[in-house]
Amino acid sequence: MTMKAWLGPWEDRCTSSRVLRFVDVNLRGIGQVMFQDNPLSGLLFFVAIAWGSAAAGVPQVAAGGLVALLAATLASYWLRVDAGVLNAGLCGFNGYLVGLAVATFMPPSPLMWLSCVLGGAVSVVFMLAVARVCKTWSVPALTAPFVLLTWLLLLATHAFYGLDGGALPPVGEIVPIDPGAADPLRPGDFVAGIFTSISQVFLKGHGPAALLLLAGLAVNSLPCAVFAVAGAAVGVVTAHVLGAESELVTAGLLGFNPVLTAIALGAVFHKPGVRVAVYALIAAVLSVIVQGAMMALVTPFGIPTLTAAFVLVTWLFLLPGLAFE
Amino acid sequence: MTMKAWLGPWEDRCTSSRVLRFVDVNLRGIGQVMFQDNPLSGLLFFVAIAWGSAAAGVPQVAAGGLVALLAATLASYWLRVDAGVLNAGLCGFNGYLVGLAVATFMPPSPLMWLSCVLGGAVSVVFMLAVARVCKTWSVPALTAPFVLLTWLLLLATHAFYGLDGGALPPVGEIVPIDPGAADPLRPGDFVAGIFTSISQVFLKGHGPAALLLLAGLAVNSLPCAVFAVAGAAVGVVTAHVLGAESELVTAGLLGFNPVLTAIALGAVFHKPGVRVAVYALIAAVLSVIVQGAMMALVTPFGIPTLTAAFVLVTWLFLLPGLAFE
Amino acid sequence: MTMKAWLGPWEDRCTSSRVLRFVDVNLRGIGQVMFQDNPLSGLLFFVAIAWGSAAAGVPQVAAGGLVALLAATLASYWLRVDAGVLNAGLCGFNGYLVGLAVATFMPPSPLMWLSCVLGGAVSVVFMLAVARVCKTWSVPALTAPFVLLTWLLLLATHAFYGLDGGALPPVGEIVPIDPGAADPLRPGDFVAGIFTSISQVFLKGHGPAALLLLAGLAVNSLPCAVFAVAGAAVGVVTAHVLGAESELVTAGLLGFNPVLTAIALGAVFHKPGVRVAVYALIAAVLSVIVQGAMMALVTPFGIPTLTAAFVLVTWLFLLPGLAFE
Repeated sequence: MTMKAWLGPWEDRCTSSRVLRFVDVNLRGIGQVMFQDNPLSGLLFFVAIAWGSAAAGVPQVAAGGLVALLAATLASYWLRVDAGVLNAGLCGFNGYLVGLAVATFMPPSPLMWLSCVLGGAVSVVFMLAVARVCKTWSVPALTAPFVLLTWLLLLATHAFYGLDGGALPPVGEIVPIDPGAADPLRPGDFVAGIFTSISQVFLKGHGPAALLLLAGLAVNSLPCAVFAVAGAAVGVVTAHVLGAESELVTAGLLGFNPVLTAIALGAVFHKPGVRVAVYALIAAVLSVIVQGAMMALVTPFGIPTLTAAFVLVTWLFLLPGLAFE
Repeated sequence: MTMKAWLGPWEDRCTSSRVLRFVDVNLRGIGQVMFQDNPLSGLLFFVAIAWGSAAAGVPQVAAGGLVALLAATLASYWLRVDAGVLNAGLCGFNGYLVGLAVATFMPPSPLMWLSCVLGGAVSVVFMLAVARVCKTWSVPALTAPFVLLTWLLLLATHAFYGLDGGALPPVGEIVPIDPGAADPLRPGDFVAGIFTSISQVFLKGHGPAALLLLAGLAVNSLPCAVFAVAGAAVGVVTAHVLGAESELVTAGLLGFNPVLTAIALGAVFHKPGVRVAVYALIAAVLSVIVQGAMMALVTPFGIPTLTAAFVLVTWLFLLPGLAFE
Repeated sequence: MTMKAWLGPWEDRCTSSRVLRFVDVNLRGIGQVMFQDNPLSGLLFFVAIAWGSAAAGVPQVAAGGLVALLAATLASYWLRVDAGVLNAGLCGFNGYLVGLAVATFMPPSPLMWLSCVLGGAVSVVFMLAVARVCKTWSVPALTAPFVLLTWLLLLATHAFYGLDGGALPPVGEIVPIDPGAADPLRPGDFVAGIFTSISQVFLKGHGPAALLLLAGLAVNSLPCAVFAVAGAAVGVVTAHVLGAESELVTAGLLGFNPVLTAIALGAVFHKPGVRVAVYALIAAVLSVIVQGAMMALVTPFGIPTLTAAFVLVTWLFLLPGLAFE
């Protein structure tokens, strides 16, 4: 049975059941983290994250994402967001990511859960705001609302005793990389880096979860899965050639931006083709460099870079509005 | 006599007298700091600031504001700004705030006064620039021109010997808050915090001045006065719940952003109502968190946060263009 | 023979020869660094930079600029940029500056040259992106693409061992200026400062090169040459009055922004006149202050300010869209 044949009846059921529609909207919200307007993609992504969180001993991360996602969806109803936007899952993916990030960088506490709820709800407002601005130039909001809101929440941990940023990177001066930390690329690390780069899109470095994520992409769009792998490979190789810290590369921390950049530019916002692929992969290379720049930029503030490099590079490469036919 | 009955004849006199019109434009400029296009509001605000400055032993702050305001108004004439914009006081409020801030953070000196004059004049250009950009999405410039220009002037004190930033916060690394500094909220501090939060809109923590400011709001718009108090209360409570440094809260330093945010979203740019009030107060809560984030963000640069949190949150909550009927 | 009489036959030859057109496009690319759509201006600028680089013992700087310029032009062909934009040199000036900056702040190495190639090529995408956004408010992209891209490349040197930022300013805390370093202005330093300020537009402090640059301006636009000198003079005097470090002023490091600001606002984007001149020179004064602010802002990141102050001030002074007739 093809995906379309399967989705049709499901869509019919969602139309007649408010409960199923609610489930559908939330699943698509998770799917849209990697541009997939498909509840099955979302389900596979969700299982992957749950697995990765449990395996890392931090099940609260998956739970934080879910709480924030539900808060985002409920807020969208209250704000009476346009049904077309809502039903495509576009109100949920930023909230889901905010919840994952908050629960990753703040230890569990009542105020952490409250931050997930507030963050999820407010992410809808941020998404609508950024989308309104971006619409002027026909570019998408991407994960900019997630990055901006999470940065604000995490920066605030420095000012409030009750917001515990215990799992944040330390505040400090930028320190040049230790040359000894940049090893040559081993084949095993190359493969590991590809998988962790894909799973780091959801803030987790977990190889098996990456396979589920790729499955979630493939059920909806094979080109997206191909560009995810290509972006990850470009990311790992570029980072090694430039001399990044090998452990960071193998943990996927220099590869999740090129994954998203390659999917977005190679398979989602352009019709796939040779010239488009070249364009997307150059952007993927650049997003590794920009990730390095972002790592320096956030160091004095003790916050993570999140997907800022992906957002910046993808916006800059979409804004010219180039046609590649 | 109602406000309208009083303003009518005054407006007639201004039309026939250039001197009265000049006075009127400047008073409305002060009134617009809290969105009041009313010369009486401006007069009450002006007296409040003068009183607060004198009481704090820094009369030069009120004088700096006045000098910059006059420079802004004269520059507006020279730039031939549209009369509708000028006569509503929209060319003055950023300049007035620039002058207050410059005179607050720089000790008196000839170059400080020159900074007030230049800052006031240039604030008009910044206001027109920001307003032009904002108009694309039908949002107001708010106090963004003031924040941007004052940040630039105060940052420049680090590079020029003649620009003395002696009263600026120290440059340094972000230091986590001391838990011992976060006390439980005492009723007296709650009330004090509400008043100082309102007066900190004009960079002064002075309770009695806050009453004059509330009077200035009430003579033109009762809802604005109500949302000012509500925003201040939300600010003080939120800051305490999150565990801010109690002294900062009682000094109003975590409350002036929610005051402005609540007024703007609750009573100025939306028709007041229950859903609008919920929306505005959530934004007010967020603006406390964003103020905490801003405090961390400016620490390495030794500059104050000013009203950046208010501007950012209010823009983000206005940009979706939600209708709340 | 007038410039027009000379350019006509040249333009005819370029139309019939792809090689000459390629040369022409690249020369205009260099010319556009100071707004001159004229191949002779570009040639004079090119010679000035080559001379300045050789004299300073860093010929790789001129070579880096050339490599990045060629990469930018070839990328423009591949991206099929509109011929009108391309032939006016608008695809090249950001790339040329990226190459000069990369080769100035990174010691020669294979990855440095690769950075020039990648930086030059990507600068075209950045230029088209920024221009698209700016077009909404009818303002030009200026050198913002150069500043943004170069900042990203140089920040990335902190994260990658292979990207050597050996010639970058040190990372550190902002330190207040030493009063002893601010001398009174000597006539010799005044003249030297004017010339170095002009040549620092191309990242070199070389007096004789400045004469060639002025010649390059004058052959295409006398007002541009006049405003360049006026902007430099305003810059040197303002910096001294404010108490900048005298050595920086004499090296031209506080004067290149006012040079560009004065040319842009006084002679390029407005019709020259008395009111325009006043407006442009106030902006030039402000751009010195903003340069001081930028110097503080980049200190924790160990990167140069580049022409950020010029871009920011010129955008803010163009955005109001004032008519000065």
